[in-house]
Amino acid sequence: MTLRIAEIFGPTVQGEGALIGEPTVFVRAGGCDYRCSWCDSLHAVESAYRHDWAAMGHDEVMAEIRRLSGGLPLTVSISGGNPAIQDFGPLIALGKEEGYRFACETQGSVAQPWFAALDTLVLSPKPPSSGEQIDWGKFDRCLELARGCGQAVMKIVIFDEVDYGWARDAAERYPDLPLFLQPGNPDVDPTHPVDLQVAVDRLLWLIEKVTGDRWFTPRVLPQLHVLVWGNKRGV
Amino acid sequence: MTLRIAEIFGPTVQGEGALIGEPTVFVRAGGCDYRCSWCDSLHAVESAYRHDWAAMGHDEVMAEIRRLSGGLPLTVSISGGNPAIQDFGPLIALGKEEGYRFACETQGSVAQPWFAALDTLVLSPKPPSSGEQIDWGKFDRCLELARGCGQAVMKIVIFDEVDYGWARDAAERYPDLPLFLQPGNPDVDPTHPVDLQVAVDRLLWLIEKVTGDRWFTPRVLPQLHVLVWGNKRGV
Repeated sequence: MTLRIAEIFGPTVQGEGALIGEPTVFVRAGGCDYRCSWCDSLHAVESAYRHDWAAMGHDEVMAEIRRLSGGLPLTVSISGGNPAIQDFGPLIALGKEEGYRFACETQGSVAQPWFAALDTLVLSPKPPSSGEQIDWGKFDRCLELARGCGQAVMKIVIFDEVDYGWARDAAERYPDLPLFLQPGNPDVDPTHPVDLQVAVDRLLWLIEKVTGDRWFTPRVLPQLHVLVWGNKRGV
Repeated sequence: MTLRIAEIFGPTVQGEGALIGEPTVFVRAGGCDYRCSWCDSLHAVESAYRHDWAAMGHDEVMAEIRRLSGGLPLTVSISGGNPAIQDFGPLIALGKEEGYRFACETQGSVAQPWFAALDTLVLSPKPPSSGEQIDWGKFDRCLELARGCGQAVMKIVIFDEVDYGWARDAAERYPDLPLFLQPGNPDVDPTHPVDLQVAVDRLLWLIEKVTGDRWFTPRVLPQLHVLVWGNKRGV
C-alpha cells in the first residue's frame, strides 16, 4: 500500500503551534477533503497538482526521513493537505521502532485509528473565513480515536473578528484541550515576499484581542516559517 | 518584609522560551548579581535605577496582579534583574491560593527554596558573550531546590559561534533538561526601533546552525516581544 506524498523536507523547525521551534522533518501528504479560501499549501491540496505527488511505500518514506535526519531520531511532522484521508499507521510504527516521534496536523474531519499512536495530534478546525464548515461530530470522533496519544491540542487560525468569536465558542466546547491561536496569513503567494511588519501587526492585533478580553487560556503564536522564509517551499 | 519591584505589567503574552505565547502578567524584580554586557533590562539591574524600584509588600504585589488580570487567574512571570536574590515565596503562596500559576526566570546563580513552589522554573545560564561566568555548582543547587516544581527548563541566549559551542556543552551536561535557544538581541535601546529583518535573520542563522548540525533536542525560538514591540517597556 502506498502513500500520496506532496513533499518531504527538513530538518527545519516546526513553525507554529504546540511544538513551535522544535527541529522536525515534514512529510506533507497530498490530497484534502477541504478547500480553504486562504490555503497556503494548494500544491498539496488541488487535484490539479496530483501528478506531482509521489506514490511511496511506507518504507520509502521512512528511508527519506532517515536520510534527511542522518538517522538521528527527531519529531516527524505529518501535514498536508489532510493526512487523515490516508493511512499513516505503518509509517508511524516503522519510525517509532527507531525512536522517531510523530506529530500530525489535521482539521478534524476524518478520524483515524492511528491517531492513538501519535506523540502529538494537532486538531485545527477551520474558522468561518476558510469557507469550510466544521462537523463537530466528526471532530469528536477524532478526539475519541486520539485517546492514548501523547497529547492532543487544538489550533485555530484567526483572520478576523468573526473567526475570533468562533474560536471563543470552540474553546468553550473543549475546555480541556490546550488551545493555540495564530493570526492568519493572507499573503500566500510563494513567489512574493511576506511583509514582515504586516505579519507582526497581525500578531499584535491578536495578542491585544486576547489579553484585552482577559482570555487567558489560549497561547498566541506567530507562524515562524512565514516570518523567516515567507512562503518559500521546502523549508 | 518587602520586595524591590522594578515594574509590574500586563496582561501581555510571554515572549520567549517554554511558555512562549502564554498570557501573563510580569512582575519584574529590581536588583541583580550579574551585569551582562547585552542586558536588555538595565532599569531592573543597575543600582543607579534603584530609586525607581518600589518597596512593596507581597499582598500589595498580589493586589496589583489581581487588578491587572481582573481577578482571573493566569500565569504570573517573575523576572528581573535576578528575582532569586529576593524571597518570592510568600507571593507565590498567596497567588496559588487564588489559582494563579507562577513562572520564574533566573540565571541559576542563587538557589531558593521557593523554586519548588513554581509551576515553571526557567534557568537561563549566561553564555560567554555576556561577560559573566557560570558557577555550575550553584546551578546544580538551583536544580536541587527546584525538585517538586511543575517543570524546570533551560534557556540559553546565543549571540555568536562561541555561545553556540558553549550551549552545546551545557546541553550535554543536562541532557534531561528541556532546552530552549534564542538568538541574542544586540539592539536593546528602548528609544530605537528594532530592525525586523535583522531580528529574523538572526533567528534564521540559529535555526540553520541547529538543524545543519542535526542537533535535534533544543527548541529554537525568537523573542516575540522584540518582534512586536521592539524594546518598548511595559508590554
